[in-house]
Amino acid sequence: MAPKAPKFELKTPKGTKDWEGKDMVIRDKIFSTITDVFKRHGGVTIDTPVFELKEILSGKYGEDSKLIYDLADQGGELTSLRYDLTVPFARFLAMNKDIQNIKRYHIAKVYRRDQPAMTKGRMREFYQCDFDIAGIYDPMLPDAEVIRVINEVFEGLGWNGEYTIKLNHRKILDGIFQVCGVPEDKIRTISSAVDKLDKLPWTEVRKEMTVDKGLAEDVADRIGEWVVLKGKRDLLEKLEQDEKLSANESMKQGMADLRLLFEYLESFNAFERVSFDLSLARGLDYYTGLIYEVVTQGSAPEKAPVTAGEEGAAAAPKQKKKSKANSEDDDRSDDPTVGVGSVAAGGRYDNLVGMFSGKTQIPCVGISFGVDRIFSITSARMAKNKTAEQVRKNEVDVYVMAMSGNGFLKERMEVCAQLWSAGIKAEFMYKVKPRMPAQFKAADNNGVPFAIFLGEDEVANKQVKIKELGLSKDHPEKEGILVSQQDFVAEMKVRLQRKKELDQVAVQAEGLKVVDGIKKGEQDGDAAAEAAPAS
Amino acid sequence: MAPKAPKFELKTPKGTKDWEGKDMVIRDKIFSTITDVFKRHGGVTIDTPVFELKEILSGKYGEDSKLIYDLADQGGELTSLRYDLTVPFARFLAMNKDIQNIKRYHIAKVYRRDQPAMTKGRMREFYQCDFDIAGIYDPMLPDAEVIRVINEVFEGLGWNGEYTIKLNHRKILDGIFQVCGVPEDKIRTISSAVDKLDKLPWTEVRKEMTVDKGLAEDVADRIGEWVVLKGKRDLLEKLEQDEKLSANESMKQGMADLRLLFEYLESFNAFERVSFDLSLARGLDYYTGLIYEVVTQGSAPEKAPVTAGEEGAAAAPKQKKKSKANSEDDDRSDDPTVGVGSVAAGGRYDNLVGMFSGKTQIPCVGISFGVDRIFSITSARMAKNKTAEQVRKNEVDVYVMAMSGNGFLKERMEVCAQLWSAGIKAEFMYKVKPRMPAQFKAADNNGVPFAIFLGEDEVANKQVKIKELGLSKDHPEKEGILVSQQDFVAEMKVRLQRKKELDQVAVQAEGLKVVDGIKKGEQDGDAAAEAAPAS
Repeated sequence: MAPKAPKFELKTPKGTKDWEGKDMVIRDKIFSTITDVFKRHGGVTIDTPVFELKEILSGKYGEDSKLIYDLADQGGELTSLRYDLTVPFARFLAMNKDIQNIKRYHIAKVYRRDQPAMTKGRMREFYQCDFDIAGIYDPMLPDAEVIRVINEVFEGLGWNGEYTIKLNHRKILDGIFQVCGVPEDKIRTISSAVDKLDKLPWTEVRKEMTVDKGLAEDVADRIGEWVVLKGKRDLLEKLEQDEKLSANESMKQGMADLRLLFEYLESFNAFERVSFDLSLARGLDYYTGLIYEVVTQGSAPEKAPVTAGEEGAAAAPKQKKKSKANSEDDDRSDDPTVGVGSVAAGGRYDNLVGMFSGKTQIPCVGISFGVDRIFSITSARMAKNKTAEQVRKNEVDVYVMAMSGNGFLKERMEVCAQLWSAGIKAEFMYKVKPRMPAQFKAADNNGVPFAIFLGEDEVANKQVKIKELGLSKDHPEKEGILVSQQDFVAEMKVRLQRKKELDQVAVQAEGLKVVDGIKKGEQDGDAAAEAAPAS
Repeated sequence: MAPKAPKFELKTPKGTKDWEGKDMVIRDKIFSTITDVFKRHGGVTIDTPVFELKEILSGKYGEDSKLIYDLADQGGELTSLRYDLTVPFARFLAMNKDIQNIKRYHIAKVYRRDQPAMTKGRMREFYQCDFDIAGIYDPMLPDAEVIRVINEVFEGLGWNGEYTIKLNHRKILDGIFQVCGVPEDKIRTISSAVDKLDKLPWTEVRKEMTVDKGLAEDVADRIGEWVVLKGKRDLLEKLEQDEKLSANESMKQGMADLRLLFEYLESFNAFERVSFDLSLARGLDYYTGLIYEVVTQGSAPEKAPVTAGEEGAAAAPKQKKKSKANSEDDDRSDDPTVGVGSVAAGGRYDNLVGMFSGKTQIPCVGISFGVDRIFSITSARMAKNKTAEQVRKNEVDVYVMAMSGNGFLKERMEVCAQLWSAGIKAEFMYKVKPRMPAQFKAADNNGVPFAIFLGEDEVANKQVKIKELGLSKDHPEKEGILVSQQDFVAEMKVRLQRKKELDQVAVQAEGLKVVDGIKKGEQDGDAAAEAAPAS
């Protein structure tokens, strides 16, 4: 019977972790908030295997292919763990020729043999929440809906406008590169260099272009004039007014797309948080049109110096201070979103399905939410708001207790069975004769709102006592109420429903809830002024 | 732009499949029904990595270890895909010494390099839904609650008592083997032979014991007298009355456990579907006490010969015909559950955590539901009940349509944005100027219950028309109702709520719903008479 100690270190594999307790509850709440938004837009879910044939993944991720996890060759097919959910989705569409259009969402783990940085939320096993619209439609309509979905997700998570949706267009970038004189065969590699502008200053990126990648200095300088710019309609107009750019065929297509997109985003009330940012390039090769990335200062306040007064008083995290500097370059270095990394990213990929199906092409546009990073930011906010303390580990509504040395085990079990049959979440102590304090402690540990007591009198009179836990001393029902054994289930249902409604009102009044819809930000003056992308 | 065809067969790896469409909706419904039950009993969920260090899994699954999927050695740790959720749970408990008791549930995929039999639901990647109670408690209380959980899950899935919970006790089996004269070193292998009694007749099993495993013939015959028996309290009394058996120490412990369990199951109203079955042995080595397995005839009627009259008329699947034969052996061969395989299984394992933690022992008892098989049976039932046709692929509530050649794109988008902001699920056609029939078809394809129309008059008068789709010709609101653009969201909410309530009433009346709680079976005379394990 005496077990022998294992000879290896007891741990999860490198870059992976267990999820449990309140973290798990919060993450589940994030999933359900995101799922609600996806369903609100007609999304349906699919489930693909965690591993794919090795050939499916190869040639899709460029340099990052080295990060793919292979399964051992144990005879039979060679397979690899999925690297993202996009390539499996394209494979699925190519295999199911009867599906010509779909709004699909998929929430699942993906795998990358990267160097893990657990504190920054970079893991080898992590969740992605993807929403993609596949099908042939009038231009930019699905693209606009995806941007609207991004807004609803972050508002649903209670971020109150504290995020920026950076967007750009591959055809605009390519047009700029062409007009500036980048040779056709260097366009993708120069694009990769530009993508680093969120981490490096322009001088560094310019060096990579010229010294490392052999671009002529004057070409780099011309690029430098454009890719540091960001704005909204103003930037689009600036591009349109430039004679050389506006004559470029690729630019023309990209600009027409953006003009239409901006109009649609206004109809969708989803333009507010958008920043047209020419420095955004995105790494993956398969994007063909609109690209976007969501950034937030999020957890940055923890690292950035904050004055004591600001830190203590704010109910919600403060918005970043507006930089007074007018130079784009200076503004970037002051931007608290720099280096935090994106919390969601995506774009249009019109040619990926065709890579599998040969002839059939199904254009797609989509977004992938990085849940681990969203979790870190959300839980930091909850810690600050003290809402984390209110998170319960389980959802038990009623703790059934014996108030007698007898223990009334059979009676407690029968009461629980009746509650369960009515769909009510209930527990009792797994002891024949439990002590009172132990039962109260168990209920208290999990924040159970109600207790049902069984004492000598109650059992003799075929009654139970229902008591709401945590009532104030002078509350008229502080001592609980007696109900017959026939009626207590119905009574319990009424009380639970009433409590649920009251809790909802309270939560809404405090503005603490992770809400489902987009609502006007009311918590914080600064945030509300800048946020509120919805009606 | 013309994509090249891939050079390999486009498929998912052997023994895996994609899930989509109605199947996915039905499977999600099964998950949520099961999750509701787990939460009702105070369950909390954890999430462990899909792969574990290879050492964690080795030495836990006996012969079946050869079915473990290894990841390729790409430098670093050697890891394998999890084979079940139980061993990772035990590893988790051993690592988290602050958790001394927990009711944990875990719904996730597991991996076995078995020979797949897709039609029987045997896959290489499949879902398990596990609920386990860990901690030191008074005897048989958590065990009884797990049996109650099994009842609630299958009643929640609408199986109306059409399942049998076979149970046995390792200590009773071991006691019988000892008393019958099985040498101590042969006990596990003889136990494995007994476990095959659900697939093979006694004569075959006897042959395996004597010829293959070298057991004396008289010992095998004595075992044969016992292991073919099943019953309830009657069988327990028969064991208790046997002088030799009741003198055996292992038997004594097992019989005391069962006596207590049966009492508790009556208090929990969960004894009805239980069959104390001495032929149940369960393969895995780590069980130490109570073991159980849930079987059903389930999909069997599809294979068994059924007379035409019976097949057409029954609203719910018929219960099996009672066999007139009294011999246990004959009855077995007539039992339609034979060969169908179990839909859930589990037991008590008190020593597994200690295999990892060295000293700390945390006793556990749990159940694992095999969702793929439950899915096959549930969807076969739904097909028979014609409820599958009612399953919608998405959950969209409102389809927003233009009733004018103008297309009213901007107006449709604004209406959708307002609905989304209010949390209402809405779609519109991704076309600038969609045709009426195409819009109706899109709404109809997904069974969308409401449409909002925007025509010339409506837009001019700042109104919308709300129309419930599929109303009868003479319904007073057949043509829809006009509402101002200010009020339509509130009006839509009221109507959706009302429809939801009416649908629930209708569904309950038809008894078709996959219900949450245990309810009295009312659909089918036969089933109801035998079923209804609840109050």
